[in-house]
Amino acid sequence: MPKLSQKAIDMPASPIRKLVPYAETAKAKGKIVYHLNIGQPDIETPEVALNAIKNMDRKVIEYSHSAGFESYRNGLSAYYLKTGINVNPEDILITTGGSEALIFGFMVTCDPGDEVIIPEPFYANYNGFAVMAGLNVVPVTSTIETGFALPPVEEIEKKITSKTKAIVICNPGNPTGYLYSKEELEQLRAIVLKHDLILFADEVYREFCYDGAIPFSVMNLEGLEQNVIMIDSVSKRYSMCGARIGALITKNKEIMAAALKFGQARLSPPTIDQIASEAALNTPQSYFDNVVAEYVQRRNIMIEGLNKIPGVFCPKPSGAFYCVAKFPVDDAEKFCQWLLEDFEFEGQTVMMAPANGFYSTKGAGQQEARIAYVLNQDSLRKAVICLEEALKVYPGRTI
Amino acid sequence: MPKLSQKAIDMPASPIRKLVPYAETAKAKGKIVYHLNIGQPDIETPEVALNAIKNMDRKVIEYSHSAGFESYRNGLSAYYLKTGINVNPEDILITTGGSEALIFGFMVTCDPGDEVIIPEPFYANYNGFAVMAGLNVVPVTSTIETGFALPPVEEIEKKITSKTKAIVICNPGNPTGYLYSKEELEQLRAIVLKHDLILFADEVYREFCYDGAIPFSVMNLEGLEQNVIMIDSVSKRYSMCGARIGALITKNKEIMAAALKFGQARLSPPTIDQIASEAALNTPQSYFDNVVAEYVQRRNIMIEGLNKIPGVFCPKPSGAFYCVAKFPVDDAEKFCQWLLEDFEFEGQTVMMAPANGFYSTKGAGQQEARIAYVLNQDSLRKAVICLEEALKVYPGRTI
Repeated sequence: MPKLSQKAIDMPASPIRKLVPYAETAKAKGKIVYHLNIGQPDIETPEVALNAIKNMDRKVIEYSHSAGFESYRNGLSAYYLKTGINVNPEDILITTGGSEALIFGFMVTCDPGDEVIIPEPFYANYNGFAVMAGLNVVPVTSTIETGFALPPVEEIEKKITSKTKAIVICNPGNPTGYLYSKEELEQLRAIVLKHDLILFADEVYREFCYDGAIPFSVMNLEGLEQNVIMIDSVSKRYSMCGARIGALITKNKEIMAAALKFGQARLSPPTIDQIASEAALNTPQSYFDNVVAEYVQRRNIMIEGLNKIPGVFCPKPSGAFYCVAKFPVDDAEKFCQWLLEDFEFEGQTVMMAPANGFYSTKGAGQQEARIAYVLNQDSLRKAVICLEEALKVYPGRTI
Repeated sequence: MPKLSQKAIDMPASPIRKLVPYAETAKAKGKIVYHLNIGQPDIETPEVALNAIKNMDRKVIEYSHSAGFESYRNGLSAYYLKTGINVNPEDILITTGGSEALIFGFMVTCDPGDEVIIPEPFYANYNGFAVMAGLNVVPVTSTIETGFALPPVEEIEKKITSKTKAIVICNPGNPTGYLYSKEELEQLRAIVLKHDLILFADEVYREFCYDGAIPFSVMNLEGLEQNVIMIDSVSKRYSMCGARIGALITKNKEIMAAALKFGQARLSPPTIDQIASEAALNTPQSYFDNVVAEYVQRRNIMIEGLNKIPGVFCPKPSGAFYCVAKFPVDDAEKFCQWLLEDFEFEGQTVMMAPANGFYSTKGAGQQEARIAYVLNQDSLRKAVICLEEALKVYPGRTI
């Protein structure tokens, strides 16, 4: 019997899927489960994208260029320039989801054993990509009390060793919804330049910024052009997670040339999905206005509802469609499992993602859970009521 | 300026794309270029697959299960069982192309620094996947004189060290078109079992077998169930290379569980393309009969035409849609470049892939080139005439 590799052993199971069997049992028993655990929006994909697929007149579904269709790269560059982000077509490699962009980015710039610093809590799959590339994740803890702002730069700089190759941020952030200010990004620029690192910025939630907040892209950090890799994706912007179309964006020509060799090895990103993504560039502004208005409502219902529950604290995020809340419980993972296994209110319960899966530091975030407010407003209101009722009776309640 | 990783340096450029700039210049000058260099068939994608895309009635393009849609895995299993290949739904992980299947397979079973033995010439992108996983490719040379049959097992066994983890074959083979016999596969079984290795078999050309030859799948090698990973893809079978839907197939439950963790990290294979692939399972047998009949004609035109040219030798392949031919030239790469840069016959020329990119051993295959007979019969006839005329005047001709 052949042995598995060390990477197979190190690869973490997905924290958002850990509780899936309990949810399935709950549903089999007839409970309604409000899925706040996963970032699969219910928002419809723009019609222009769906129509492009329906009207596709190709007779052969051929490979595209390994960097993606030229017409799509041109269109994407125009989208960035319109959005005020300095990206030209030659700065773009179309990838199979943002996932592949980050995997390629890691492999092209970091050697096995190198370290990448990531403010925690962070998107758990960064761990998986780091395992694939053989990298060690070094967390810097941000706290719920500050709303998950960037930790003080001294804290970040303390973590830098001779092995440090990169800093990874997600802005606006999954799982926190925190939107980094220009000042915070400029602080990052200073340490990235000082230590000649790479700054990876996952900006896939760019369109989801609230209360007039305007996201600042790392591509606009002057003087950092050679040290920045931006990760993008159509998944959230156009609610087409299943299209698996992302992009690696950089002005560093050496990195781009090397990433293209990785892209050539896997031939091309999916063709039909690129056609849909290119068409999605023509999505009318009203679509985004409606989506943002809807998410603001959902966020407000969720955040206000949570903070009204005695002992619960949830900072109000400015972006994305997640929040991390702190619950008055012994252990959020136990609480989340208990919600599925042992609790129901009027036949309903809630599924959340325990936040420990988003922290790399052992024991961190033990009372926290990530909530994706991707359901309709009525469901969210009911979910909040469930949580309130649950906390009245949860045996591991701490206050 | 941050330094690139060792992997970025080691990643080979695609050998089939090396000459692309010369082809573009040739076309800009008005030459007709017959593209025999790349395995992008001109065969139409089955209508059932195209119609499934057009008739898709989803409003949201959501993620699928990380292992692929259950309905698709069930359907795929039924296809295998009908084809006489022992594969159940739980043995299947749907991947983004065969490429991702092999990358996951390598990462799950091999550690960086491990060795994988591959009979050469082999599909050049195996080098790229090995670089991604940090593996060393150890070639065993097969020869054009035997039609690229499996090298003697003693030759393979000589290459086995304490670092050897796997043997990789492609059957029927790209670039050779060679179809391994059951006896050859049983020889491989013996050494794989003896040394407890993994046998990777890329069987994506299964449907393309000629003259009554029946491919034998590694999944049917009795007693080897725990040591086999089969790689599959819809790219060639249904002429939908751009769909990027493949599969990792194994009965080894540990390997499957680990591969699924890798799959979860990248979330899911593309959704629309899985819908097309599932529909493609209903492609009528007449489609394949027509395609195979067409490829037999094409192969015959190409092989007979090549072997009639003085000094050219090309074994007759039993499968896939490639052949490797030996030319009476100093250096096939120079010859291929010269064909594009300096030659034309009645305004036409030919693009082939120099075979050196398919060998790992330095200097091997220097007089050989890979030809993909994926063009219509008329174009192939003209391409053969071009080659004949070219060899009359090529300055580096050796006989």
